[in-house]
Amino acid sequence: MALTHSTELRVRYAETDRMGIVYYANYLVWCEVGRVEFMRALGGSYADLEAQGYGLAVAEATVRYLAPARFDDSVRVETTLVGVRSRAVIFEYVISNADTGTRLATAHTALVSIDRTGRPTALPAAFRELLEGPR
Amino acid sequence: MALTHSTELRVRYAETDRMGIVYYANYLVWCEVGRVEFMRALGGSYADLEAQGYGLAVAEATVRYLAPARFDDSVRVETTLVGVRSRAVIFEYVISNADTGTRLATAHTALVSIDRTGRPTALPAAFRELLEGPR
Amino acid sequence: MALTHSTELRVRYAETDRMGIVYYANYLVWCEVGRVEFMRALGGSYADLEAQGYGLAVAEATVRYLAPARFDDSVRVETTLVGVRSRAVIFEYVISNADTGTRLATAHTALVSIDRTGRPTALPAAFRELLEGPR
Amino acid sequence: MALTHSTELRVRYAETDRMGIVYYANYLVWCEVGRVEFMRALGGSYADLEAQGYGLAVAEATVRYLAPARFDDSVRVETTLVGVRSRAVIFEYVISNADTGTRLATAHTALVSIDRTGRPTALPAAFRELLEGPR
Repeated sequence: MALTHSTELRVRYAETDRMGIVYYANYLVWCEVGRVEFMRALGGSYADLEAQGYGLAVAEATVRYLAPARFDDSVRVETTLVGVRSRAVIFEYVISNADTGTRLATAHTALVSIDRTGRPTALPAAFRELLEGPR
Repeated sequence: MALTHSTELRVRYAETDRMGIVYYANYLVWCEVGRVEFMRALGGSYADLEAQGYGLAVAEATVRYLAPARFDDSVRVETTLVGVRSRAVIFEYVISNADTGTRLATAHTALVSIDRTGRPTALPAAFRELLEGPR
Repeated sequence: MALTHSTELRVRYAETDRMGIVYYANYLVWCEVGRVEFMRALGGSYADLEAQGYGLAVAEATVRYLAPARFDDSVRVETTLVGVRSRAVIFEYVISNADTGTRLATAHTALVSIDRTGRPTALPAAFRELLEGPR
Repeated sequence: MALTHSTELRVRYAETDRMGIVYYANYLVWCEVGRVEFMRALGGSYADLEAQGYGLAVAEATVRYLAPARFDDSVRVETTLVGVRSRAVIFEYVISNADTGTRLATAHTALVSIDRTGRPTALPAAFRELLEGPR
């Protein structure tokens, strides 16, 4: 079962570039917003995970840009958890214009669970169970 | 023949996050610096290309994160042109610590040539020849 | 009569730095969010103003930092219009933690009305009246 | 005696916005680059100061925007130390186009010395002496 969470945001002027559209790196910021809200919706909190001494470091990120986002657009970020392993979590994202439904980008990130020193470590069992959801 | 250009930059405090390392989206900014300097080294200028009414829009970007970059590190960005077609340019990047040589990340971007209205269009011949280099 | 509008946002990981708190330049991004939402609440839209060929360029900005904002905090931005002239608009901002009420920062920006070429020009009368509000 | 240090940087595409010029918050990033290079030129290092358990938190920042910076411009940041006290350091900045000399902005930041917990504390004596320079 794949869990998907949807969140919306408004494009900031700061996020645009002189091409008149959103600068390409900023889609990765929106993916961060998407997965943080995904965890919150499940009852977890990425801030709490860090408070317990864990972190999720990005190991790989891919974005495919399909159509430009522009200043003041309402953007929807749909985040899907596509895999959880002992030390890794994989999310996929569909980013679209919330008013028109136009798909703007798709993205994929692989995150690795680390401890305070930055070494890979197993996710806390409770957090992993939360992500894996009901079976 | 693959052309590679190397440029260096210093990690800014603004580029770090509370994990104490560089935030993952910022590597894409460094890729931008790498390809702009690549074009300048060939005798072209991305600013001039835009002044002529063309642009290069990113169609796809992938980053693999290998080791963290930290505040004040000297970072080397090696940019390689791996493909030029009529309407597309593909670059690969190796990002490393300039002092230790540690590889921090590798990246790949596919760019599409567009006109002022954002439609795909063929690159100006002179610019394409510049990128394709001597044969 | 001073008009004030309040909007809220959630601190992004991207906005923090390795001190563990929000990087100082990002408060100016939040001020942008505050004034864009201020205009929208009045029935105007900064995007529409630009579509008409006008812009508001920042001429001066000051921020006083009182307490740190942290990742995942809910932040309230209260934006007050403190002056409208033919070619200038002045906003003040109070940025606080939305849960605790702790004041995080105050800010002030002076914006100048410009045309498409970047030259100072009078604001469109309708927009100025909108900002000046009911009397 | 006022100490001034000059450093240069190239405007990144990421730093522009859809007005075609550099987004106003990014000038504060350049001020950070200016003061970090100022300290390095004196033989200190902000990274080392943090490694010793100290930090400099910005208490106040002001920028006056005089002319726009654009993509690919060479920008000079001249940083002047205008005051050092036990717990505070004040810098002023003149930001100009390195090719034309056009003054783009002036800025002022007041920084407060803090310890690892974020409390104000006296600067290490050696660092303060370094900043105060030869007499």
